[in-house]
Amino acid sequence: MTTESTTSREITVELFESLYESCSNWGRWGTDDQRGTLNYITPEVIQKAASLVRSGKAVSLQLPIDADGPQTGNLGRVNPIHQMTATGTDHVNGAQIFEGDSLGFGFADDSIFMFLQGGTQWDALGHVFRNGKMYNGFSASEVTAQGAKRGGVENMPTVVSRGVLLDLPAVKGKSHLSPGEAITPEDLDEACTFHNVTIEPGDVVLIRTGDMAARRDLPQWDGYSGGDAPGLSLRTASWFHEKKVAAIATDTWGAEVRPNELEASFQPLHLILIVSMGLLVGEIWELDSLAAECAADGRYEFLFVGPPLVIPGAVGAPLNPQAIK
Amino acid sequence: MTTESTTSREITVELFESLYESCSNWGRWGTDDQRGTLNYITPEVIQKAASLVRSGKAVSLQLPIDADGPQTGNLGRVNPIHQMTATGTDHVNGAQIFEGDSLGFGFADDSIFMFLQGGTQWDALGHVFRNGKMYNGFSASEVTAQGAKRGGVENMPTVVSRGVLLDLPAVKGKSHLSPGEAITPEDLDEACTFHNVTIEPGDVVLIRTGDMAARRDLPQWDGYSGGDAPGLSLRTASWFHEKKVAAIATDTWGAEVRPNELEASFQPLHLILIVSMGLLVGEIWELDSLAAECAADGRYEFLFVGPPLVIPGAVGAPLNPQAIK
Amino acid sequence: MTTESTTSREITVELFESLYESCSNWGRWGTDDQRGTLNYITPEVIQKAASLVRSGKAVSLQLPIDADGPQTGNLGRVNPIHQMTATGTDHVNGAQIFEGDSLGFGFADDSIFMFLQGGTQWDALGHVFRNGKMYNGFSASEVTAQGAKRGGVENMPTVVSRGVLLDLPAVKGKSHLSPGEAITPEDLDEACTFHNVTIEPGDVVLIRTGDMAARRDLPQWDGYSGGDAPGLSLRTASWFHEKKVAAIATDTWGAEVRPNELEASFQPLHLILIVSMGLLVGEIWELDSLAAECAADGRYEFLFVGPPLVIPGAVGAPLNPQAIK
Amino acid sequence: MTTESTTSREITVELFESLYESCSNWGRWGTDDQRGTLNYITPEVIQKAASLVRSGKAVSLQLPIDADGPQTGNLGRVNPIHQMTATGTDHVNGAQIFEGDSLGFGFADDSIFMFLQGGTQWDALGHVFRNGKMYNGFSASEVTAQGAKRGGVENMPTVVSRGVLLDLPAVKGKSHLSPGEAITPEDLDEACTFHNVTIEPGDVVLIRTGDMAARRDLPQWDGYSGGDAPGLSLRTASWFHEKKVAAIATDTWGAEVRPNELEASFQPLHLILIVSMGLLVGEIWELDSLAAECAADGRYEFLFVGPPLVIPGAVGAPLNPQAIK
Repeated sequence: MTTESTTSREITVELFESLYESCSNWGRWGTDDQRGTLNYITPEVIQKAASLVRSGKAVSLQLPIDADGPQTGNLGRVNPIHQMTATGTDHVNGAQIFEGDSLGFGFADDSIFMFLQGGTQWDALGHVFRNGKMYNGFSASEVTAQGAKRGGVENMPTVVSRGVLLDLPAVKGKSHLSPGEAITPEDLDEACTFHNVTIEPGDVVLIRTGDMAARRDLPQWDGYSGGDAPGLSLRTASWFHEKKVAAIATDTWGAEVRPNELEASFQPLHLILIVSMGLLVGEIWELDSLAAECAADGRYEFLFVGPPLVIPGAVGAPLNPQAIK
Repeated sequence: MTTESTTSREITVELFESLYESCSNWGRWGTDDQRGTLNYITPEVIQKAASLVRSGKAVSLQLPIDADGPQTGNLGRVNPIHQMTATGTDHVNGAQIFEGDSLGFGFADDSIFMFLQGGTQWDALGHVFRNGKMYNGFSASEVTAQGAKRGGVENMPTVVSRGVLLDLPAVKGKSHLSPGEAITPEDLDEACTFHNVTIEPGDVVLIRTGDMAARRDLPQWDGYSGGDAPGLSLRTASWFHEKKVAAIATDTWGAEVRPNELEASFQPLHLILIVSMGLLVGEIWELDSLAAECAADGRYEFLFVGPPLVIPGAVGAPLNPQAIK
Repeated sequence: MTTESTTSREITVELFESLYESCSNWGRWGTDDQRGTLNYITPEVIQKAASLVRSGKAVSLQLPIDADGPQTGNLGRVNPIHQMTATGTDHVNGAQIFEGDSLGFGFADDSIFMFLQGGTQWDALGHVFRNGKMYNGFSASEVTAQGAKRGGVENMPTVVSRGVLLDLPAVKGKSHLSPGEAITPEDLDEACTFHNVTIEPGDVVLIRTGDMAARRDLPQWDGYSGGDAPGLSLRTASWFHEKKVAAIATDTWGAEVRPNELEASFQPLHLILIVSMGLLVGEIWELDSLAAECAADGRYEFLFVGPPLVIPGAVGAPLNPQAIK
Repeated sequence: MTTESTTSREITVELFESLYESCSNWGRWGTDDQRGTLNYITPEVIQKAASLVRSGKAVSLQLPIDADGPQTGNLGRVNPIHQMTATGTDHVNGAQIFEGDSLGFGFADDSIFMFLQGGTQWDALGHVFRNGKMYNGFSASEVTAQGAKRGGVENMPTVVSRGVLLDLPAVKGKSHLSPGEAITPEDLDEACTFHNVTIEPGDVVLIRTGDMAARRDLPQWDGYSGGDAPGLSLRTASWFHEKKVAAIATDTWGAEVRPNELEASFQPLHLILIVSMGLLVGEIWELDSLAAECAADGRYEFLFVGPPLVIPGAVGAPLNPQAIK
């Protein structure tokens, strides 16, 4: 793990372009493909993943969806607004009339307004563009005010595979990584060795930085969303590509290290992972409970089940991912 | 399976009160319990369920969340409103400026407004009251305009168990059950025999009526939401109770048969299942794809993974349930 | 007044192009102008308008904003969703705690979700484009997913002038005009004569068709929104232009007659009125109460005060317009 | 004008109870009345008000409705969320298809989510309760999760009267009043003398503190919403009552001085003004432009037109109030 300043010296636009090209999966699964690296998940992968269930314990990886979330207006995103449209107090006050009901029936009901990428979420492949194109060469113009005609989250109604947790702070012997701290391929290898796991094709790799735990109780999450963060170095792109990883997720707002490793760029790793590779990327995941479970039983692999809510045309979607051990 | 008029003759307020009392789980798992029949799901149940994965195939049981949903204003519920806050067309038009970005970055982003029980959903235990009380005797007053302090969906962050599909139209040799057609305990037994399955404690029982398939393509779903529907008879309450079922879900809007079996009542079975038993009830599930898969391989049991979105204080929540075979 | 079929014979693409050119106000009030025909409203116009107040009676011209509105999904628009976030029932139940309050304080609070053009509204000048341009030649690209940088409703924070009601059904001796029935310049002249008014520069002309009254109580307003409607013929464009009208409003969803007078076009009059002229156009106005008042006192002119809600970047906005007699 | 600490010594619970009783208008306009002090506005008042229009200048008193508003989560209120559902960039990209349109038609469309009392607004009479009652003795239970059956904003579809501006900072020779600074009846008298106006029955009295101007450009408005503020002392209640004022509005979030003058109370003046008197109270009004206009021409009276958006069942509503000089 290197500091941002050290990493910056190694990362160049030439490296970016080289990785963007070498990691490309455009055309790999056909010219119409909209599932990207999820194609690595074969029935065999799912079968093997199910066999990892030993203790019969399920762990949720979702940050609760509420007004205490990390959003403060960055990219226009605000925290969810949950509103009741029928209440128990109304029932108790006799203010709910079910015509002629004689059995004492009452109910509560509710709605939510939320930004789809405001909390625990998957980025759909239509979420990021480069120079007018999304993954597999589809035009960015396919994503209009009416939604995404290509690259929408409806292309991934099931996401079930083997999950692996790489708990970087545990590996490094710290409570958490710090903003600007880049995770390198060497760090990922070290974590695999430390946790005694080998990444296999189709894996969902969960990378914990400790950033959420460190900041979620601070006022406005201390700038968590949209700000500087620990995260993946550009150089990890080839690591994920070569190992045929199906998906990754982190406990940070944007997966990759910030400040951006390349000056004059915004989230350059997103361009490689999402646009070039078609990799499913998860953000704002709550990996602390799972880290505790894995530390307790020493097993960092498990059955992973984490499909997004299917919202046709959406470029991101919330979910309640489950690690089943 | 009997018609509504026949059933009506058998169902009385006395039967209702008797079932309401005999099926009660109040206090069974402690006075503070808010998980109800999910308590039947033990680690052993999960372990066994995972062993059911054979073909490595995952099936989504979620109706897509979009403007074509079943809601038409009943109970104030309308279909979801998905809105884009950043688009590919803006990117293509150079209308997205990431200050100084030199790599061609663009993105799309979006939000949703939705009623939490407008589509595929779990009812939380705080969704239904009887005479001022919810499951386990908590006061309905715990559910205010600020949300549910008791009975909220955050009490069930993981829902993983064995799933069983009972495909009633297949059993009965019809394309679908009709509005008013009640499913009896005898029908459920017949289905278990027909599908060669035995219900076990902790099971999630999915009951397909064919109602969604029959009506979803008709204008305004032909009155599907809030209207008459095929569904469970009051008498099935003791069947679920005795078998220690953890959860049930159907492809109808309200699980139970409508018109209501008891005159002068609104959803009387809800009172028994949710208030008295603390049973997790799912509605508006898309069970057609799963039915086709089960018919194809002849296996009606599978690993079920279906946690709700965790929205603290919510009395219902959407989800993308997965059947993994 | 002619039927749609008769009118169709007279209306040609050539006429459209001729009107589009001859009615243009591009550049008339400077190259930066975003107020269009509101520029006709001078301080003198407002002074004179105020002098029309005689009986001291104010009339609201707003359709209530509620779930009974005319929207059924056309253009994605749905009716408003009003939700309470604090209630009197909560107060009565002691479920609102104002820490330490000793005087018995309680409150209610609420929110709304609404489409800005779902009910009584003004079209902002950025609402309609032709061939990539909006009024005064600004690029349509100024209106992105982030809102309108040009043509937004914030350019008209005050709309005060003389108002004139032209009550076409009263003039024609019918209860209401019918879908497809076009209002011609000759009809408008006839109405002015009938009501004993002369249109003056800066006037806000309210044109009642009776369409709202005829359909608002029917199921789903009988297709009012987005459907066929009585309304203005293309030929009225020059009438408004020559008389230097500042704004018009009708009790229909789209002001102009539908079916469209030109085959292979959508709302062609909008292109002339909004894009070419920069005319403020109001739709879905409740003109029935005002018509009754005018019929009662025989005076069809009044002080008009109808500013939109100022929502920067919005291309339409709701309002509660007032006619003060 | 006295400081908060001085005022505190004078204000007692006994004074509160005395004012609450002596200022009561319950029953004054009938037991069914839901318009409160708006009843003071007679046709004669409106006629006279219209005669005040001299220069023909209209001034908007509305704070723009946008993401830069004052809300930060107090009472659950957040700033408005304006979203585009059709854009000019889509039109330019050919991503809007009007089937067969041959004239180059394009459009933009939008929606808003907003808290009704998040910006410039009127409090409806159903907004505040005391001990289970609202104005005129109606039960607070009339306001449920379904909205207000009594006390809703639909009872005031027209608000037209004489307006008077009292610009306290101008009177006191300061840029603005400070949080905790209470405005007394003597201050109001002094302002009337200073501005050469006499309050008359039916007046809408606008009271500028300068608080909005002082804080709106600071980060998160420096705690403007829900925090300490300059404002009206409890003692002003009788001043408004005796003068038969129809409505008041201020440029603060809550009209009355905060910290509250009575310990162990929340907004005690609200209880007298809204519950006891039935006075229309406006908050978060932008009075700076109007103050500049009045200072320029020396006239602090004008025609006021400020109806709320009519949202049936709402307990508050936004508006764009107009002062016409």
